[in-house]
Amino acid sequence: MATDQLSVTFAALADPTRRAILARLAEGEATVNEVAEPFAMTLPAVSKHLKLLEHAGLITKGRNAQWRPCRLDARPLQDAAAWVERYRRHWEESFQQLDEHLRTMMKRTKE
Amino acid sequence: MATDQLSVTFAALADPTRRAILARLAEGEATVNEVAEPFAMTLPAVSKHLKLLEHAGLITKGRNAQWRPCRLDARPLQDAAAWVERYRRHWEESFQQLDEHLRTMMKRTKE
Repeated sequence: MATDQLSVTFAALADPTRRAILARLAEGEATVNEVAEPFAMTLPAVSKHLKLLEHAGLITKGRNAQWRPCRLDARPLQDAAAWVERYRRHWEESFQQLDEHLRTMMKRTKE
Repeated sequence: MATDQLSVTFAALADPTRRAILARLAEGEATVNEVAEPFAMTLPAVSKHLKLLEHAGLITKGRNAQWRPCRLDARPLQDAAAWVERYRRHWEESFQQLDEHLRTMMKRTKE
């Protein structure tokens, strides 16, 4: 298992439930029960995802013993965004090439 | 294992060797041997990473039987970038709050 922060961040994002949890918390803090509500999942299963996200530094838990809301901490996402953004030129070129290829093919079909 | 494309992309990025391979291929296509060269790893170990990247659609292999270069295909990174970018406002706010907190603490220390 890789342990560098960037790998931990990307691994945390490699699951649709965890991404949905982050999207929910982006709207505001929520209790574990509130987070779990929209998922067809047991509470322990959701808790496991929350622990992984907390370990990755993407969420924090409030200190109030009675009511420990989960809160988004998006800071680790900055490095993830910076890493991916370096390839923008490459994907833009790839899409452009695909576009040109399709245009050529359509032109040939018409002729 | 999650199988949606975005999860597959993030999982592929959750490893420093695989990110280094993509960075190498961003400079231009390369053979498996050339890709493997800078890593203190066996060729089968590097091949395993390349297969995973190919499966994730992040690299393609040339069709020439003699010389099958690996080539970056950055297109799946566009959706990954778009997903992460949605949280920009959140991390910028978090860093700003941290900054304000540190300034307040330093001011108190001086007083």
